[in-house]
Amino acid sequence: MKKINVPDLNIPRVIIIGGGFGGLELIKELRKADVQIVLFDRNNYHTFQPLLYQVATAGLEPDSIAYPFRKIFKKQDNVHFRMGEVERINSDEKLIYTSIGEIHYDYLVISTGSRTNFFGIENVKQNAMPLKSVSQALDLRSLILQNFERATLEVDNDIRESHMHFVIVGGGPTGVELAGALGELKKHVLPNDYPELDVRKMEIHLIEAGNGLLSGLSKASSDKALEYLKKLDVMVWLETQVTGYDGLTISTNKNKTLKAKNFVWSAGVEGNVVEGISKDEVARGNRLKVNEFNQINGYEDIFAIGDVASMQTETFPKGHPMVAPVAMQMGENVAKNIVSKLKGKEVKPFKYFDKGSMATIGRNKAVVEVGKIKTQGAIAWFIWMFVHLITLVGFRNKLVTFINWTWNFINYDRGIRLIIRPFHRKNPNTKLKEPENDLDINVDADLG
Amino acid sequence: MKKINVPDLNIPRVIIIGGGFGGLELIKELRKADVQIVLFDRNNYHTFQPLLYQVATAGLEPDSIAYPFRKIFKKQDNVHFRMGEVERINSDEKLIYTSIGEIHYDYLVISTGSRTNFFGIENVKQNAMPLKSVSQALDLRSLILQNFERATLEVDNDIRESHMHFVIVGGGPTGVELAGALGELKKHVLPNDYPELDVRKMEIHLIEAGNGLLSGLSKASSDKALEYLKKLDVMVWLETQVTGYDGLTISTNKNKTLKAKNFVWSAGVEGNVVEGISKDEVARGNRLKVNEFNQINGYEDIFAIGDVASMQTETFPKGHPMVAPVAMQMGENVAKNIVSKLKGKEVKPFKYFDKGSMATIGRNKAVVEVGKIKTQGAIAWFIWMFVHLITLVGFRNKLVTFINWTWNFINYDRGIRLIIRPFHRKNPNTKLKEPENDLDINVDADLG
Repeated sequence: MKKINVPDLNIPRVIIIGGGFGGLELIKELRKADVQIVLFDRNNYHTFQPLLYQVATAGLEPDSIAYPFRKIFKKQDNVHFRMGEVERINSDEKLIYTSIGEIHYDYLVISTGSRTNFFGIENVKQNAMPLKSVSQALDLRSLILQNFERATLEVDNDIRESHMHFVIVGGGPTGVELAGALGELKKHVLPNDYPELDVRKMEIHLIEAGNGLLSGLSKASSDKALEYLKKLDVMVWLETQVTGYDGLTISTNKNKTLKAKNFVWSAGVEGNVVEGISKDEVARGNRLKVNEFNQINGYEDIFAIGDVASMQTETFPKGHPMVAPVAMQMGENVAKNIVSKLKGKEVKPFKYFDKGSMATIGRNKAVVEVGKIKTQGAIAWFIWMFVHLITLVGFRNKLVTFINWTWNFINYDRGIRLIIRPFHRKNPNTKLKEPENDLDINVDADLG
Repeated sequence: MKKINVPDLNIPRVIIIGGGFGGLELIKELRKADVQIVLFDRNNYHTFQPLLYQVATAGLEPDSIAYPFRKIFKKQDNVHFRMGEVERINSDEKLIYTSIGEIHYDYLVISTGSRTNFFGIENVKQNAMPLKSVSQALDLRSLILQNFERATLEVDNDIRESHMHFVIVGGGPTGVELAGALGELKKHVLPNDYPELDVRKMEIHLIEAGNGLLSGLSKASSDKALEYLKKLDVMVWLETQVTGYDGLTISTNKNKTLKAKNFVWSAGVEGNVVEGISKDEVARGNRLKVNEFNQINGYEDIFAIGDVASMQTETFPKGHPMVAPVAMQMGENVAKNIVSKLKGKEVKPFKYFDKGSMATIGRNKAVVEVGKIKTQGAIAWFIWMFVHLITLVGFRNKLVTFINWTWNFINYDRGIRLIIRPFHRKNPNTKLKEPENDLDINVDADLG
């Protein structure tokens, strides 16, 4: 395999796999360290995942929640970004093999995050829309709008309405926020866009296996979220497990089936493990077992942080929560420990400081829990917007997002309703009949 | 073929094929007319083509220059939008056949615009990047950034530099504006993004077959544009014709070859004719011959407007220029004539009012000719920005574009440097060797 072209310096090389919240924080913390940092990511940008659902529901441009790595590290000259996918780790030789060649590391940090977990339900995996990346969010946006365009063409009531039915699986923040955003589209936007459709027939279902929404929050917040969703015409099905989806019909473990052409799966994630680590170190949820210093047991120079790391403590016997603050704090601590190691100083164990959590359901409808403060409604909504705005990377992104939100607030609008690249189902194994109306137009057909 | 589901009213039905500048203007002008309007377009949005090059060069989000049709016509309730591609016209039965079914018309307006003309050069058609649609602009943006990422991986000087070489063919507004924008990227943005590359090795070539740039403008403006481009390090080759491009090597009719992995073809367009119109009525440049009322000869109820229409007059013996103002004015006149016809009034011939033209090359570098006013430099640049801002559809788009431009102006930046969907060459016939470095990553690979 070809060697990756990175300057050969006589200082330790720290390789980071994945530029999510944890990876970025770690790199920033190493800005003054006398190390060479090489970041690998399959994308050339960092994704602000908490706002993906707004891209999917036409509230924000994809460019507002993504930020190029090279721009982030413009002024940090110990960082080298390489766009590529890591295929395998060879810990004996301290090498990683990637889609663009191989490279030697002194310290390796795995911050590959998580991916959608379909729990082995094959037809869900084939037919559901996940929501973990910018391109998936754009696909979902296209699918929703394409299905409404299809609905205008249908004379059969059942077929037409199935294109206007939404089923979202998973009552975590993604599912709740997406369902709420769809509720607002139904209320304020779609009736104007589709005067020829009876938008009252649009149904939004949120299915959750547990007995409440937003399991990370208190019962009071969870109940409030449920109340808000009901106000937005979302039907919530608790203690219900989805067992299959054939592209139209959703089957569950209850005596309940639904028909919908829009089916979003946000019911779970699993660690995005890189090959080359012993299977013994892979814990529940496909996460890598790490000690209190985020070292993978048996691999002194390999760390895992964020969603892909399972650090089990008394407070968190199943590992820490898979949320951004954990990843960022782990990144910071590992960076500090690498610096300490190089200086021969003592390393410090990780300690999670819980900053709280929050979710927004709609305009003036949010729940926030920060320390002892628990608030709901309009104030919570403003806190949610403020926190997300200041956390977004880049001033331009903050500004454009602020303007879009202000615009949407004043006009009850969501302006980005564009099918720029029509969504085509890619899996060739699916035996579903394609829709009768061929809206899957090749937009570049005129190029021959 | 299935009938398209549109309300059956007892008033004349006007069908418009294509929602470009001409189609939109025509529909707006018919807002009070007692007709049923059905608009077909393969996209669900109007594209502001003059700013596509800014999407390709990371200056604007695609969403800023596109606007959903349903939003445009929210308050005009005689319009029905149907997303679909028109396949054939049956003028005997007054029917059109589309990808979503068939439909009857009383009046038909063909405003299908133009497509890239490769003048039959097969390997150019296969390997060049055109710039006529939002998805093409996004593909070009991805390709440029991917090629720079590839360049960082290359140890061979020639191969590395070929990834940093740009050849643009066609010295019209698109070619000139794109070349200028690339010149600014080279000057202000890329050296910061790629400290590991010697960005001085980036070459930008603009090739034009004629003896000057911007043939629609005066000699003074054309010379000024050339001067501005030279200041931005663009090499301009006049009186040179490209004869082929194999994916790396550009051959010309002069004793000159260039090597570049970035090759943009903006050397010409041709009408985007719909099947079903007699070949006798197709003029030079694949445009439909129309009389002074924009009627296609021999088809009283079928009109063609804009780029696809060839209205030959004494002033314009080869047909009117293929620019937005012609399309808009034709749309307006046809709309008025349809109303006059319905009222039994006299119809009026089309008369073009030339509002002038302009092009921007870079910051403080533009040329403007409006009536007797000819101006260049900073003032021209501000006029150019002002005119484009007010012409953009939608206040949100104007505002976001204004902010991006202000941002770019203050920071010498172009912020949207994202490879959201990596570009893959689609044509299976091309026999080019794929680049050694596999950057064509499937961003959704984690979904199984």
